Amino acid sequence: MTVTTDLPSWEARALDKKSRILTSVPPQYIHSDLTHSTTDPSPVHSLAAQYLTSEEVLITSLDAPALLDLIAQGRFSSVQVLNAYTHRAVIAHQLLNCCLEFPYAAALARAEALDREFESNGKRTTGPLHGLPVSVKDQVRVVGTETTCGFVGNLGKKDEEDSLLVSILQEAGAVVFVKTSLSIGCMWGETVNNIIGTTSNPFNRSFSCGGSSGGEGALIGFCGSPMGIGSDIGGSIRSPSAYQGLWGLRPSSGRIPYSNILNSMEGQETVASVVGPMSRSPASLVLFTKTVADAEPWLSDPKCQPVPWRDEIFRSVTSGRKLKIGIMHWDGIIFPQPPIRWGMEKLEAVLKAAGHEVIPWRIDQKAAISILTRVFASDANGDIDRSRAVSGEPAQNLLTNASAAPPLTLLESWSLACERLAFQTEILKQWKKTSKVGTSEDVMDVYLTPVNPAVAPRHGHYAKARYLGYTGTVNVLDFSSCTVPVGFVDPELHKADLGEELDAAGKEIPKVTGDLDRHIRSIYEPDVYKGLPITMQVVGRRMEEEKVLGVATLLKELLKKSS
Amino acid sequence: MTVTTDLPSWEARALDKKSRILTSVPPQYIHSDLTHSTTDPSPVHSLAAQYLTSEEVLITSLDAPALLDLIAQGRFSSVQVLNAYTHRAVIAHQLLNCCLEFPYAAALARAEALDREFESNGKRTTGPLHGLPVSVKDQVRVVGTETTCGFVGNLGKKDEEDSLLVSILQEAGAVVFVKTSLSIGCMWGETVNNIIGTTSNPFNRSFSCGGSSGGEGALIGFCGSPMGIGSDIGGSIRSPSAYQGLWGLRPSSGRIPYSNILNSMEGQETVASVVGPMSRSPASLVLFTKTVADAEPWLSDPKCQPVPWRDEIFRSVTSGRKLKIGIMHWDGIIFPQPPIRWGMEKLEAVLKAAGHEVIPWRIDQKAAISILTRVFASDANGDIDRSRAVSGEPAQNLLTNASAAPPLTLLESWSLACERLAFQTEILKQWKKTSKVGTSEDVMDVYLTPVNPAVAPRHGHYAKARYLGYTGTVNVLDFSSCTVPVGFVDPELHKADLGEELDAAGKEIPKVTGDLDRHIRSIYEPDVYKGLPITMQVVGRRMEEEKVLGVATLLKELLKKSS
Repeated sequence: MTVTTDLPSWEARALDKKSRILTSVPPQYIHSDLTHSTTDPSPVHSLAAQYLTSEEVLITSLDAPALLDLIAQGRFSSVQVLNAYTHRAVIAHQLLNCCLEFPYAAALARAEALDREFESNGKRTTGPLHGLPVSVKDQVRVVGTETTCGFVGNLGKKDEEDSLLVSILQEAGAVVFVKTSLSIGCMWGETVNNIIGTTSNPFNRSFSCGGSSGGEGALIGFCGSPMGIGSDIGGSIRSPSAYQGLWGLRPSSGRIPYSNILNSMEGQETVASVVGPMSRSPASLVLFTKTVADAEPWLSDPKCQPVPWRDEIFRSVTSGRKLKIGIMHWDGIIFPQPPIRWGMEKLEAVLKAAGHEVIPWRIDQKAAISILTRVFASDANGDIDRSRAVSGEPAQNLLTNASAAPPLTLLESWSLACERLAFQTEILKQWKKTSKVGTSEDVMDVYLTPVNPAVAPRHGHYAKARYLGYTGTVNVLDFSSCTVPVGFVDPELHKADLGEELDAAGKEIPKVTGDLDRHIRSIYEPDVYKGLPITMQVVGRRMEEEKVLGVATLLKELLKKSS
Repeated sequence: MTVTTDLPSWEARALDKKSRILTSVPPQYIHSDLTHSTTDPSPVHSLAAQYLTSEEVLITSLDAPALLDLIAQGRFSSVQVLNAYTHRAVIAHQLLNCCLEFPYAAALARAEALDREFESNGKRTTGPLHGLPVSVKDQVRVVGTETTCGFVGNLGKKDEEDSLLVSILQEAGAVVFVKTSLSIGCMWGETVNNIIGTTSNPFNRSFSCGGSSGGEGALIGFCGSPMGIGSDIGGSIRSPSAYQGLWGLRPSSGRIPYSNILNSMEGQETVASVVGPMSRSPASLVLFTKTVADAEPWLSDPKCQPVPWRDEIFRSVTSGRKLKIGIMHWDGIIFPQPPIRWGMEKLEAVLKAAGHEVIPWRIDQKAAISILTRVFASDANGDIDRSRAVSGEPAQNLLTNASAAPPLTLLESWSLACERLAFQTEILKQWKKTSKVGTSEDVMDVYLTPVNPAVAPRHGHYAKARYLGYTGTVNVLDFSSCTVPVGFVDPELHKADLGEELDAAGKEIPKVTGDLDRHIRSIYEPDVYKGLPITMQVVGRRMEEEKVLGVATLLKELLKKSS
């Protein structure tokens, strides 16, 4: 590894970045008594109210559509909203170490312009996201900011062009106000990098926020942003969404534009990374997805497909028709921890109670993970090593480090692409077979499954407990998926049951399948995990975002009714 | 190269296949006085009438929609139609050497079943293609047939599952009746393989039918099939369509299912091969594309996108609204031969006369070809060598033989994928700039350009005169394209003008740009090329098949009016 010697050391560059993160925000938003901890287990949400005005608390408690309604009614200005969220995001960063840059001056200028337009247009908004603050994972390019993708070597270069997605959101009235931390090259399930270190979970700072879109997870989980953009190649939107109890959409590739968003392993297209929204309600995700589709991104991004927002599909699901929903409580490989199993049973129960048909469903996740692992390792870390070499920063845990094997040859990589296609084809066949009458009419609509078998990883525990089966299978299939928060760990309700023969509900507990299965079952401790979110996912086929979001919307209502 | 020694030699296996091609068809359709020639320049179309009944001539003269109408009216049975086309296709094969297999027994059983259904359903058809004979390039799998993709080594294996596209067409009532010849691994612009040798052009048998879907081109050009399926990674649908004066659609990837269709270089997805229809009218292509989209292939083929047939786009073009059409007479690299330039001018003139806006358009085809050439050569012929080694058959000319360079490393191939994406993105930007008002309202609809700078290659002449600029750029961009036959070479009208300063219309002839440009200009000889078809292409952006087919439909009408 060669380091360009006329540059400062990577440590100096990282330290410089760290010192600059809050220099742009109004100083009154920085509270010198707040500090980040990776050991304090007490939830930090309640701290916000001690520092925010009641108006700021109100603004930051609303989901995106509710907030936009109040802006449209003139109740809050875009500047007020930007400032409230900036204040809360700064507090989040001080407590959780989740942000990399606040482009406050540009965001303020944008919010002021929106307020002027609102006044001069007779109090009419300029677009469906008028005044909505949006946070973005630090892969997303925003003019005038640094975009690191987690690499020290990318510091110091300022973006000269927005990512297409940013242009679309800004055109719709959004205000990009903060860039959030991520794992190196987006390739790890905790958010740790050599720039600012570790990001923590607001529900329990001794736990990880997950990764790789963990800065988004922590920030939105702290209500420091109403809407964020993450990316997902093996669960990087869904795991942080799960660990913070958020609604996060992993769209199929070709739905949300990736154009001019930085990534590692660029050009690797066997299993593609996708970008998608993370938020605090399914309605926020619907708004985001519809807004992006309405902008016809396929006319600018060659990888986007000309699929408009299909409201009829969304409405057919939310209108009350009887749905057929597959349930994969577990995959036969890694048995979920008690709170996760409770979450699945809860969803199954509310669906049945509402008259929907529930059918058993299981996918061969072992085959999927075998494919995904080889894709991640296909270049033997070559691309990430090259990016680290720019600054000389050290390696960290990486999913691309899976083996000591050499890079695949081109023919081997083509063979892997064929294997993946065969797997996808097979699962589509299996899906079609859920129809009793052989038509698409009564075929399974979506399936439900855990996001992860574990509730969340403690800092540093991901390496030993990682299992990509539940998230990564969706990536290999390029299916659409939305996370569905169900509740929180309650030691009374979710007792440890490793070694028991029956669970709390009297159901048989399957035998341990192997070391990883045993480990993941064994690390669950009810009193330690107390209060952490419990989150499932609803999965549709490729490009079925409307259906998946419809079912997520429905589940939110059913859960509310049942509580 | 190792050859399994308990198998017969490749020569013996090829000879055996050749001897079996016509054994399945009714013997009265084989005419012992007909033989293939690669030197006789006289067109062979008129020979058909000497051997066919007047009813057979009528049936085989109709385009697909007209023929289907008569079947639906009960005027012809599916068996009558199958037999007429089988008879004409056998004659085509005897004259042109274009077919590899006639699954006649299965096709007859299918046609008989359709006739029975028609009667028992009160003379109602079972689907939109009820009784339509369809030919398929010998990559397409049909149960009970051999599928070679041009390799001797694939002989002897019978397909056990239809390609998804075949299932869809058969479900719609089509009758797959013949499999057509192709170049080895679909990677050459003439149709030559070690199984049956060379296929000739029905307009002049001393010329090639083009490739790689040349068997389809020759057969449909002889009216031996009303609809055929070809594939295209660098022009393989459009060149044979051009050389035989056909309407051929190269769809964007993800529109027509490739599932379970054999190909070379499988898993290479930087520039993907696509399948599409070739036919004798744009209405046939519309029917095909709509029928396939209506079958929702995306529910079975993971590579298909959920884009239905959008009739409103097609109708908006054919309804008479004013179109904005780009014209790329040439690319600044290879100047088209006089008949091709005449074809472009003809199209421009009829569009202007009909009140449409015509704007100049030029794409950087040099950049596109640089990318495509490296994609073709990326495995250094590794996959095709492997397939040839199965039988020990010798190499032929191949586009994959472009250089002596080693295979790309995985990182190099990712870099090439990024380069391609950047090129695509750049051209979409250029396209958007054709709008004067900055909206999609007045943006260029499509552009017109030659399919090839040369009319057609004489047998064996492709190697020295090949230029993929006009076709291959469309593949690199994954744009949609339809060929548009404009006329035939007329020595009076299309004089050679190499060395002249002005062309027949008084327009300046640009200077020769290099050796290939000079060679392609120099080989045009009006008296030798006389009667060969002159064909252009209309190109839309990704997934704009409805628009491209709409313009093709419009151009057919305008050309008819102007003649």
